[in-house]
Amino acid sequence: MNEADFDSKKEGVVLSGMRPTGELHIGHFEGVLRNWVELQNTHRSFYFVADWHALTTELDTTHLQRHTLDMVKDWLAFGVDPEKSTIFVQSYVPQHAELGLILERLINIGALERMPSFKDQLNHLSTQSTTRDENGQILTGEDAFRRLAKEKVSAGFLNYPVLQSADILLYGATHVPVGEDQLPHIELTRELARIFNRQYGETLVVPEALVGEAKRIRGTDGRKMSKSYKNDINPGMDPAQITSRVKSMVTVRSTLEKKGEPFDCAVYDLQRVFNQEGELRIAQGCRNASIRCYDCKMELPDKISAAYDDYREKRPKIGDDFVKDVLHEGNKRATTVAQRTIERVIEAMKMDYLR
Amino acid sequence: MNEADFDSKKEGVVLSGMRPTGELHIGHFEGVLRNWVELQNTHRSFYFVADWHALTTELDTTHLQRHTLDMVKDWLAFGVDPEKSTIFVQSYVPQHAELGLILERLINIGALERMPSFKDQLNHLSTQSTTRDENGQILTGEDAFRRLAKEKVSAGFLNYPVLQSADILLYGATHVPVGEDQLPHIELTRELARIFNRQYGETLVVPEALVGEAKRIRGTDGRKMSKSYKNDINPGMDPAQITSRVKSMVTVRSTLEKKGEPFDCAVYDLQRVFNQEGELRIAQGCRNASIRCYDCKMELPDKISAAYDDYREKRPKIGDDFVKDVLHEGNKRATTVAQRTIERVIEAMKMDYLR
Repeated sequence: MNEADFDSKKEGVVLSGMRPTGELHIGHFEGVLRNWVELQNTHRSFYFVADWHALTTELDTTHLQRHTLDMVKDWLAFGVDPEKSTIFVQSYVPQHAELGLILERLINIGALERMPSFKDQLNHLSTQSTTRDENGQILTGEDAFRRLAKEKVSAGFLNYPVLQSADILLYGATHVPVGEDQLPHIELTRELARIFNRQYGETLVVPEALVGEAKRIRGTDGRKMSKSYKNDINPGMDPAQITSRVKSMVTVRSTLEKKGEPFDCAVYDLQRVFNQEGELRIAQGCRNASIRCYDCKMELPDKISAAYDDYREKRPKIGDDFVKDVLHEGNKRATTVAQRTIERVIEAMKMDYLR
Repeated sequence: MNEADFDSKKEGVVLSGMRPTGELHIGHFEGVLRNWVELQNTHRSFYFVADWHALTTELDTTHLQRHTLDMVKDWLAFGVDPEKSTIFVQSYVPQHAELGLILERLINIGALERMPSFKDQLNHLSTQSTTRDENGQILTGEDAFRRLAKEKVSAGFLNYPVLQSADILLYGATHVPVGEDQLPHIELTRELARIFNRQYGETLVVPEALVGEAKRIRGTDGRKMSKSYKNDINPGMDPAQITSRVKSMVTVRSTLEKKGEPFDCAVYDLQRVFNQEGELRIAQGCRNASIRCYDCKMELPDKISAAYDDYREKRPKIGDDFVKDVLHEGNKRATTVAQRTIERVIEAMKMDYLR
């Protein structure tokens, strides 16, 4: 199928990426992939492995290939369809770096330092509250922790919202599915597109955020679900493993006689996603203490498992070679689109005099 | 001539670039180009138009093409020889962006903020000494000016030493001709090469700085020579124009009877470069007040002019089309070398699994 025919009847353009950091959990599947599978029917869809983004926080690339191939297998087994979507690897489309470099010139450092993701990272890394500047003066509070953290954060991390903007703008994405926490980044992308268009003439599409209606799924301990916290449930688990993880979940009712508030409980996150017919009954039972937490939990494992029957059947049948073929084809298609944008960008900047 | 034969007998590799910001003055010719013309005989030489660097401080690209072509004409007329050197335009070799993006991940923000060029730029831009942080707290001194300036400096500017490192490492440069002020940048380049090699295995050549013996030429007012200060002398000027500029120069002897110190005088910078046979006599005459400043100056215009006779004869004969041919050929050759390095880099990072 040639690039011109592909997707010719779809109107909007959607772009989304995922870092290849290891096994996906149900939060990824329900929060991101289910959306991708829907959107590919209505939008020209570009889904990519954000490997250059992964490098901003992890330089060890030993498992990068394995993680990439496994993640894309998950996408495919769950229904992301290479006949409907362009599936590719960021580092195989160097135009991302090229547009990123150009956009970096359009934004000041202050704007990037104000990004919540950057501040969060600095907060996360700062453990001491005083330090000294190069003149030996004692610094305290905000300035101290910023300085310390800047010794631990890569320059690529500061620029990652700029590279993300390049990811989006290269494909003329009209819509970018994101969580609330990513909204400031989409605002930056819009701002960069506007600055470029104002400086060099209308060239880049200003995208809209598509804030997911996906329901939140907290980890089994109530924190953000993450493999590294060992509080994750993943679709590859059999019902017994899922049962054991669900049983271990901490609920909010101190005694079973006490009334609960379902929205405060991570178990209820799962009910809302996997047990929609039981959702209201359970909320009521929790609020008036007529259902035991154990019984509430026990409704889940079979339902969670069943939601991935199809996935579990397909997943082992997808081989590395097939994934590589899909990515080869996707990289080629993505490169064609990306290069077309770069050429328009260079032309707008009057830097095409040697072409 | 194919790429393999080109330069096959030279040992070291030299890389150097210049921003296309307008007419070149004698400081560029004597401080940089004379060195290039020498080095191309002994080293594989890569000389490039640093247009992406120019964009870090100037977004207006209206005159970029003109400045680029004119600058390369100057190079060619002065003796930079496309049969001996690879002459190219940075933005036509997107591998610079690609390696820059990878290197950005290997260095922390603190290291870039400590670069003297970055600090100087912040100093230059800061005009106020107090401001407030986002919580309304008053900031003073260092932290205040940093915050203010960060609203005016592009993210690309912070990263420019990283892009410069990519420029160098892409071509396996063994030697980089620089002024003293650029030494911290070469140190950063060496550090980045070492970090990469340690993390992913020996891949990148660690370059050496080649600190120029070029003599300093201050502007006619004693400040740094710059077209924007109108204190420049350039090789396109005829002897009358040069005479007028030299006459206007401020010398350090308050009266002609007072003894002077030649090394404190911008006129003596010119004597050292253009009047080597008179240099010692004049230094003596200045130190014992036996020569008048007027007479000292008047030895210069003919000599300066004569140094560029050959240049002035050749310059008008070089047409845009010839320059474009040179750059086309150079871009092609540079791309071949750069792509080879990128492939080795990607392989070392084990990110070549889809090639």
